[in-house]
Amino acid sequence: MKHNFGAGPGILPHEVLKQAAAAVIDFNGTGLSLLEISHRSPEFEAVLDEAVKLVKELFNVPAGYSVLFLQGGASTQFALAPYNLLPEGGKAAYVETGVWANKALKEAKFFGEVDVIATSKESNFTYIPKDFQIPADAAYVHITSNNTIYGTQLHKFFKSPIPVVADMSSDIFSRKINVADFGLIYAGAQKNMGPAGVTLVIVKDDLLGKTGRKIPAMFNYQVQIEGGSMYNTPPCFAIYVSMLTLNWLKSKGGVEAIEKENDAKASVLYEEIDRNPLFKGVAAIEDRSHMNVCFVAENPEHEKPFLKLCDEKGIVGLKGHRSVGGFRASIYNALPITSVYVLIDAMREFAEKNK
Amino acid sequence: MKHNFGAGPGILPHEVLKQAAAAVIDFNGTGLSLLEISHRSPEFEAVLDEAVKLVKELFNVPAGYSVLFLQGGASTQFALAPYNLLPEGGKAAYVETGVWANKALKEAKFFGEVDVIATSKESNFTYIPKDFQIPADAAYVHITSNNTIYGTQLHKFFKSPIPVVADMSSDIFSRKINVADFGLIYAGAQKNMGPAGVTLVIVKDDLLGKTGRKIPAMFNYQVQIEGGSMYNTPPCFAIYVSMLTLNWLKSKGGVEAIEKENDAKASVLYEEIDRNPLFKGVAAIEDRSHMNVCFVAENPEHEKPFLKLCDEKGIVGLKGHRSVGGFRASIYNALPITSVYVLIDAMREFAEKNK
Repeated sequence: MKHNFGAGPGILPHEVLKQAAAAVIDFNGTGLSLLEISHRSPEFEAVLDEAVKLVKELFNVPAGYSVLFLQGGASTQFALAPYNLLPEGGKAAYVETGVWANKALKEAKFFGEVDVIATSKESNFTYIPKDFQIPADAAYVHITSNNTIYGTQLHKFFKSPIPVVADMSSDIFSRKINVADFGLIYAGAQKNMGPAGVTLVIVKDDLLGKTGRKIPAMFNYQVQIEGGSMYNTPPCFAIYVSMLTLNWLKSKGGVEAIEKENDAKASVLYEEIDRNPLFKGVAAIEDRSHMNVCFVAENPEHEKPFLKLCDEKGIVGLKGHRSVGGFRASIYNALPITSVYVLIDAMREFAEKNK
Repeated sequence: MKHNFGAGPGILPHEVLKQAAAAVIDFNGTGLSLLEISHRSPEFEAVLDEAVKLVKELFNVPAGYSVLFLQGGASTQFALAPYNLLPEGGKAAYVETGVWANKALKEAKFFGEVDVIATSKESNFTYIPKDFQIPADAAYVHITSNNTIYGTQLHKFFKSPIPVVADMSSDIFSRKINVADFGLIYAGAQKNMGPAGVTLVIVKDDLLGKTGRKIPAMFNYQVQIEGGSMYNTPPCFAIYVSMLTLNWLKSKGGVEAIEKENDAKASVLYEEIDRNPLFKGVAAIEDRSHMNVCFVAENPEHEKPFLKLCDEKGIVGLKGHRSVGGFRASIYNALPITSVYVLIDAMREFAEKNK
């Protein structure tokens, strides 16, 4: 039994994996693999319809928004957001909260002026900037809702005079959000939603078609909306597993229920980090992520032996990102709280041994 | 037992599906699913390395070419080819052999001038134009090596004074090619190489960086080369299944062996079409595809009952594309010749019944 704290592609529910494996052999009794059926077959169209329906249901998506399943990961959306929303000669505002936010704003520079209205770069992104003005003349303001590398999370979304574009790759479906507060939400699937290879996009329809820019078909949200995410062959398997994962989430009680579980997991783990004299957290307390819990050993020489102890207990994926070091416990939706307790026990055992 | 003649996503080898299903539960004894391990793990990096190695080996790719596994399908490459290869103010030549070629040239128009040097549109693409001049001042000439909808195939690649860009989505790895004759080859995986969700790109390195155009990271072949197809999280599962499929092809004797099998499958099926008084082929004989065998009933009223008979015999995916009608038997690499004989038997039985 492994306890998978990997930052992503991250843990998926075991029952989802079992259903996915079965579909690779025989999809819904068709006698064919899910991998070798037409995306235009009624069987696959039902999968995509169900996935879209589940997104709308779980997030209570209001009318006037479209839900897309695209390829290319959030990194492609870094370019597509400005391609579709930033008018020729226009300006976009970015809040820089980490490497991913930085990559997003660099891509926007290909399409217009970028105004970095706030950054926590000077502290290696240990906190979320809160004191900034949103320029009313920008086309949108871009945020990263959770920062995997530094273990920070935007806990309170701000009101904005202009559309908010949010990269929610690493905390999508982990907590309630009000979709109407956003102009565009995007997320790579491979944390809370499914396997790598598909990207969720939720876009407010009336923001589109206003850039004065001609956009190639595959990069054009409007074309993807008209094609129902099937302008070309979609990543069928990744969409199917996402549908299964969203269905699992619904059966658990939806976003509200999982948010409580996620809060509980984060709470007990941060408590141990604060209590245990051998470890300390790296992010500003008020900005601590409920998805990626980053911490270090007070004594750097303890890092290797602690990882070794974790390895013996079946705890995997705990090593921190190289730019922060230490440890990163990713506690995504599918990670059971029992795994968190196994980690806490290991921390206590390690502290006992190293008193 | 189904006989899968679907045009794509198409049939995959049964042993590949079995291995893929097992990896969804437990990947190589790691105790984790392939869907929930890091793309930076040694285990996944080995998969990607092996996939690249197999492409190089099976196609005997010369030095100076890079092999990439990207997202977005061939439709994304329709835009990325000119984005990366067509200089500002430059011109590209296109041979229009069907709907996909037409979509490709439409995307090129976003990036420069397009010269359609040949087309068979006037005959609904029943043949491959052969009599055309390649303009020496174009950046490249674009071809579609096989046309799934119309059942035509370019059997002899031409010599060209400028780089040849080829969309090989529907016949990649079905026959020997000389990679050195091409500047860029791309192919969606979902016919002969793997599941939907990954796209193979083979590009000649020294063609890059010459457009004078600034290209966002995910659209930039050079960035993808430098990132080893992992500038961001790749579509791990689709790459894994492609690796397994390429490995299966190697174990069958490689491209040369499969080409013989494909020729045999096409040969017996076209023979039956030509012999059987109830059916006739739709493509020009010299351009008949060895991947997609398109034919119609002499009497249109026979179409439905023939499809019904096929259905009873476990033959699936035989309905022709709506723009051509009739039947399309896709006989990709993984389709065994025994399935072709089942189809031929059905055609004979149907002819007996309708004498």
